[in-house]
Amino acid sequence: MEPESLLKRLKEYEKSGCYPYHMPGHKRQPVGELPLELAGIDVTEIEGFDDLHDPRGILLTLQRRAARLYGAQESFYLVGGSTAGILSAVSAAIPRGGRLLIARNCHRSVYHAAYLRELDLSYLQPGLRADCDICEAVAARQVEETLERDPRLDGVLIVSPTYEGRIADVAAIAEAVHRRGKILIVDEAHGAHLGFHPAFVPSSCRLGADLVIHSVHKTLPAMTQTALLHVSGDRVDRERLRRFLRIYQSSSPSYVLMASIDSALRLMEREGFERLGQFAAQWDALLERLASCRRLGIFPRKRDGEGSFPIQDIGKLVISVKNTGMSGPELEALLRMQYGLQMEMACGTYVLAMLTLSDTKEGYQRLGDALLEIDRELAERAARSGESPAEGVDLPAVLPRMVLSLGEAWDSPREWIPLERAAGRIAGEFLQVYPPGVPIAVPGEELSDEILRTVARYLELGMRVQGTAAREEKSGGEAGDCVCVIKSSRDTALGRRTAAADRAAGPERKSWERSFV
Amino acid sequence: MEPESLLKRLKEYEKSGCYPYHMPGHKRQPVGELPLELAGIDVTEIEGFDDLHDPRGILLTLQRRAARLYGAQESFYLVGGSTAGILSAVSAAIPRGGRLLIARNCHRSVYHAAYLRELDLSYLQPGLRADCDICEAVAARQVEETLERDPRLDGVLIVSPTYEGRIADVAAIAEAVHRRGKILIVDEAHGAHLGFHPAFVPSSCRLGADLVIHSVHKTLPAMTQTALLHVSGDRVDRERLRRFLRIYQSSSPSYVLMASIDSALRLMEREGFERLGQFAAQWDALLERLASCRRLGIFPRKRDGEGSFPIQDIGKLVISVKNTGMSGPELEALLRMQYGLQMEMACGTYVLAMLTLSDTKEGYQRLGDALLEIDRELAERAARSGESPAEGVDLPAVLPRMVLSLGEAWDSPREWIPLERAAGRIAGEFLQVYPPGVPIAVPGEELSDEILRTVARYLELGMRVQGTAAREEKSGGEAGDCVCVIKSSRDTALGRRTAAADRAAGPERKSWERSFV
Repeated sequence: MEPESLLKRLKEYEKSGCYPYHMPGHKRQPVGELPLELAGIDVTEIEGFDDLHDPRGILLTLQRRAARLYGAQESFYLVGGSTAGILSAVSAAIPRGGRLLIARNCHRSVYHAAYLRELDLSYLQPGLRADCDICEAVAARQVEETLERDPRLDGVLIVSPTYEGRIADVAAIAEAVHRRGKILIVDEAHGAHLGFHPAFVPSSCRLGADLVIHSVHKTLPAMTQTALLHVSGDRVDRERLRRFLRIYQSSSPSYVLMASIDSALRLMEREGFERLGQFAAQWDALLERLASCRRLGIFPRKRDGEGSFPIQDIGKLVISVKNTGMSGPELEALLRMQYGLQMEMACGTYVLAMLTLSDTKEGYQRLGDALLEIDRELAERAARSGESPAEGVDLPAVLPRMVLSLGEAWDSPREWIPLERAAGRIAGEFLQVYPPGVPIAVPGEELSDEILRTVARYLELGMRVQGTAAREEKSGGEAGDCVCVIKSSRDTALGRRTAAADRAAGPERKSWERSFV
Repeated sequence: MEPESLLKRLKEYEKSGCYPYHMPGHKRQPVGELPLELAGIDVTEIEGFDDLHDPRGILLTLQRRAARLYGAQESFYLVGGSTAGILSAVSAAIPRGGRLLIARNCHRSVYHAAYLRELDLSYLQPGLRADCDICEAVAARQVEETLERDPRLDGVLIVSPTYEGRIADVAAIAEAVHRRGKILIVDEAHGAHLGFHPAFVPSSCRLGADLVIHSVHKTLPAMTQTALLHVSGDRVDRERLRRFLRIYQSSSPSYVLMASIDSALRLMEREGFERLGQFAAQWDALLERLASCRRLGIFPRKRDGEGSFPIQDIGKLVISVKNTGMSGPELEALLRMQYGLQMEMACGTYVLAMLTLSDTKEGYQRLGDALLEIDRELAERAARSGESPAEGVDLPAVLPRMVLSLGEAWDSPREWIPLERAAGRIAGEFLQVYPPGVPIAVPGEELSDEILRTVARYLELGMRVQGTAAREEKSGGEAGDCVCVIKSSRDTALGRRTAAADRAAGPERKSWERSFV
């Protein structure tokens, strides 16, 4: 028998007449602007509602159902998003100071985990698809070769599907990783919908990954900030994993968020196959309609079959503006302001639309209509090739040289200097456009001319490049942009001695540059 | 002019007809059990809604309003609860490996921050009030003396109000800490309502604290998991602080949670003085009614005036069952099952009720009625003093001896052994009852007979002591309880060598005991 849902239990408690002499402070009343629909079901760890950090009741039952659904041995509800899952998975799986091989296009939380745990990072550089400038998923062969070269690695972390929907051959990668006794973590934040229908690949939980992270809110109908962490096999210590989940997540987890995870997973259990079948059919019809686009580059052109990896997930539509005379942000603004269509993301040469099993007929219709109309207008104009402000804007093909580790760099004295004087200096901050959050440079890496040109172009396009700041914010009144670099780039030992001396010198601690080397 | 509220903007966007080709996956539709009231206002970082991790629009405006409201220089909205605020504050303020002086009764997230950042902890042991067994807030004199003894400390972290409402002399403590050039962090999670009315003390933001953490959901009408971090002065590097907020918090922060923070703060701006005045009056009336209790110990007896610190906050009612022949959990169950009143917490000798400015007349009436009726019944029975199962259950008065640091202990090989064989061993896990989460022992500390007796008594009372487990879970079929201890207690160097050898030996990594020393 299906157990009672968390939302149902919350609503029953709301109606029970039991008076709350406990948190939250709204006492389930609509106070201020807070609506009753939210306050009424927002409780804390009271009798009958278990404790996420030590579950023995309804939350344990729900987590076990999640594990069965995805084919994992154990699953955890997350209220801190996939971020909490990544931090916990990496911290539990890799010893402090250990070595982790990661896909370069992984989420920034992976870098954050590496910083917190003082890991040595090495990278799997994904390819770039020339047709639409998106990053590829990493290939099994790449993983195999890198593991062969560096046997001291403790584990591997890949992202699949990527933000743009590229799916790696997780089974082959898991096999390669496990053959060497290492741990495989798959950031499957964009793949909580996988494994319920043959039009979609199986979830990495069933393909051998030791740890898998799912954002429930990204592709399933759950509230923002909800996620799942799954663990299988005996390579990861469960007690240690639970400890890190307790460390990184709120000790007052939101029952509203947790109830929305339960709701989404129940839907998948009950109607997942049917709904995903409809989703795949709507997707196919959309791609068929868009096949007539002549100026806009639509990716994918059609649904990937059983072909070889990487394959493209259903639901991530990349609309390339290369050779249209228009930039990604221009197309995004046009769709939003003229058509009332809000995209997921825009970058130099493309716009990303996300479709899920919750999209309506109207949603497919409006997107198809708008893109076809824009494409017609672009075709009617003379092609202005060569004039496109978006031309050539993409990630540098070669990884920057790593001079310091991320941990060393972030804990070194840093300064902001103008872009045009930064060539050859060491990055003190991530340079990236978010989303998709793929770093152009990681702290500790050398800022080459190519990197700085890429950054300058993004800025010219009006994009917000994280790790840059307007000059007036950082170094006085001049116009222009600055980047953060390491102050005394190579001599960190000297930096440390200076800092230690400063610290010993006494109470004046105004500058982090002194205190945090 | 008051700027538009976040909730209002979310609702306008909902009605705008703009179609979402972006996360979250529910597409603002009521799918499964997810109600429209939640899904409709749940968006991601789209145009017009800013970015919590790099705010320049509405979220920056709201954060600035929060800073003005509390008298801080800069404030941050938190969607990971006070947990995220504590982790970020400690990580930003204290260098990795630094020394932090903390109130022993601080929240577990403080210990977690210390573990993550490899800090050396030392403790301010709060007193215990003999009348009701609650921990005191730390005294300024204590802080002064400890700083005098150990000039190498980098900072101080105290909790005020405590979980049970004890308020420290933050102004005097700030003065003592700053006189020595150190940083003061105040965990004011239970004090987001302070500073709006003369019946309440000012917020620590106005008393000199460098960093202050507020749970908005605890005492104000906001959703669970919402909080604020405030920073003032120039002792804490702001850029570093923002970095840690980005690290510890979800990169997909919930707008529903953020909107509820905005709603609560607007209420305080508009009606804070009036509502808190009413709250204080209702509180006084409740205490006056309860003054006739003869068996139940009501704390506080009356509202603290302008007296000397520590003083008792309004809203935390401690109901002591000492000498009633009843235990805290028994009183809690009685109130819940017979009266339909859900308490915040029950421990050995008391029950805690939390009242806020959102409580209704009915709430005050029912609590007063129930307690007076129970007290009458207790008085009618013969006093069964000496028989009380709750007698003598409280925290050991003397701090356990610290043998290993928290970091060393948690990263050492550990094992579970029966309670009765644990005397003299080193704790491998926190032993605590949560809430209130005051550790009986911290990992790395020696388990004395007194500690083990305290733990055994809590277990006999049917309380869940974190850090203990039923024997069948941990070491076979016998009945009884186990605790986690360090395997080779003192020889961590040997442990490390063994682990390194194991790791070098190859791919078999089944046990964390080998991998994570």
